Amino acid sequence: MTIDAQDTAAETSPQDRLAARYRDPPWARTLALPQWNEVLDTLLAHRSVRSYSDQPLPEGLLETLVAAAQSAPSSSNLQAWSVVAVQDPERKARLATLAAGQRHVARAPLLLLFVADQSVLRAVSRQHGYAAEGLDYLEAFIIALADASFAAQNLLTAAESLGLGGCYIGAMRNRAKEVADELGLPDDAFVVFGMTLGYPDPGVETEVKPRLPQSIVLHHERYSPPAPEALEAYDERMRGFRTDQRMSDIDWTEQAARRIKDKAALTGRDVLHAMLQARGFGLR
Amino acid sequence: MTIDAQDTAAETSPQDRLAARYRDPPWARTLALPQWNEVLDTLLAHRSVRSYSDQPLPEGLLETLVAAAQSAPSSSNLQAWSVVAVQDPERKARLATLAAGQRHVARAPLLLLFVADQSVLRAVSRQHGYAAEGLDYLEAFIIALADASFAAQNLLTAAESLGLGGCYIGAMRNRAKEVADELGLPDDAFVVFGMTLGYPDPGVETEVKPRLPQSIVLHHERYSPPAPEALEAYDERMRGFRTDQRMSDIDWTEQAARRIKDKAALTGRDVLHAMLQARGFGLR
Repeated sequence: MTIDAQDTAAETSPQDRLAARYRDPPWARTLALPQWNEVLDTLLAHRSVRSYSDQPLPEGLLETLVAAAQSAPSSSNLQAWSVVAVQDPERKARLATLAAGQRHVARAPLLLLFVADQSVLRAVSRQHGYAAEGLDYLEAFIIALADASFAAQNLLTAAESLGLGGCYIGAMRNRAKEVADELGLPDDAFVVFGMTLGYPDPGVETEVKPRLPQSIVLHHERYSPPAPEALEAYDERMRGFRTDQRMSDIDWTEQAARRIKDKAALTGRDVLHAMLQARGFGLR
Repeated sequence: MTIDAQDTAAETSPQDRLAARYRDPPWARTLALPQWNEVLDTLLAHRSVRSYSDQPLPEGLLETLVAAAQSAPSSSNLQAWSVVAVQDPERKARLATLAAGQRHVARAPLLLLFVADQSVLRAVSRQHGYAAEGLDYLEAFIIALADASFAAQNLLTAAESLGLGGCYIGAMRNRAKEVADELGLPDDAFVVFGMTLGYPDPGVETEVKPRLPQSIVLHHERYSPPAPEALEAYDERMRGFRTDQRMSDIDWTEQAARRIKDKAALTGRDVLHAMLQARGFGLR
């Protein structure tokens, strides 16, 4: 089975989508599918896009995407997030520099910065004379981070359904204080990640990235530790993927371990706790 | 304009979807829409469902939903999340008790517990002889929480596209240690939220919940604090929504303030920092 990177829903069967996602066609063929539809197809077809065409973004796109984002659930309807849309080339370039110099951040027609935002909660607490002590706790940060993530993921899904592509930019946390200053964030607000968006460059192939076998991720009734052979199988499948992509030949298990091996591997994000506390997130 | 809670894509225009989401038909009519499709319709139509029919879940549903979840982006492909699927009635009942006694948690045919999961990263670090010092930092927790949230939101979108409904259960953090024990979670793993899923009871109406005006949530180029009149407009729209729903008549701004006013308002979640540190999340 070959998996065409630029395929479309019309050309790709559900089993092919699943086979690509796990790089495991035999498993995909055993799966009984309850139904298939455009939504499942959009979700399963996700791939990160870092090269964009010159096609401009249509009027109303941003507002439509934000409506999709705001349609995501929110803990107790607190809506503890917001988003800054950046299209000014110079601001994008400065933010790209802050995000490890990733050039596609500057080149994307639209750069979104998702904010874990407790500042509205602070404001309404003042308005009604409440102390907002809850914001001193890690719980409030969890709420803001989950709300921002649900919204962002809805926005990405909506964008991909409209033919756009993009990529989360975790590197916006590398120099988080400077990013906050660039955007004029108030206290109680923090950029958790960026997201680039644009129409994909048709000349650049992108591949669906294989994920861990479901046996590692999905537990039934109680948690079960990963079987070593399931991790080995994934290293093997990722080896095939990386060979196709001409990427580094380090196994996934080792790459993952290196990514969190020490403070230096965090590329500046070791100061987030102190930075967040200075901005009003108690994190107790 | 009336908005039928049980409407379907065929019956509801994009402008109606937007008007319902913001309870603001004039604004929705001004919006230029680039395109509309089944994905946008599914996302905009989201509502929380807490009453389920007896219709059983089809074979292969859970695996299809998990494939959608795993198709979400993951920071550096670390995949620092997992999910426990609970269908055993007694376990569901015990978990419902731990989640503030919410009865629909026990009644839902499927209860998913989403885990911020660093245990696989710990395992692969041991395997390759790395120290996993990164797991001592807040950054690792942010990665796990965002990964779990992206995945969960993809899963919910997939489920809703297949006609299911559900609800996030943040109250799974109320007694987080007992939830972890019930599921046999290892160190480096923590249930960030649950999610109920089932086919909606056709006899129970559910409404799209109006969200904050876009002027509060969407910033252009730089952050702008919310205009007091925008917050007043939202209080007003939510008043109309709550009257329709025969809900409490406290304004949103005050409800939000009460939800975070003091430690007691966190319903047990003030101990999360200590609990997480005891489980191996450094949070530095």
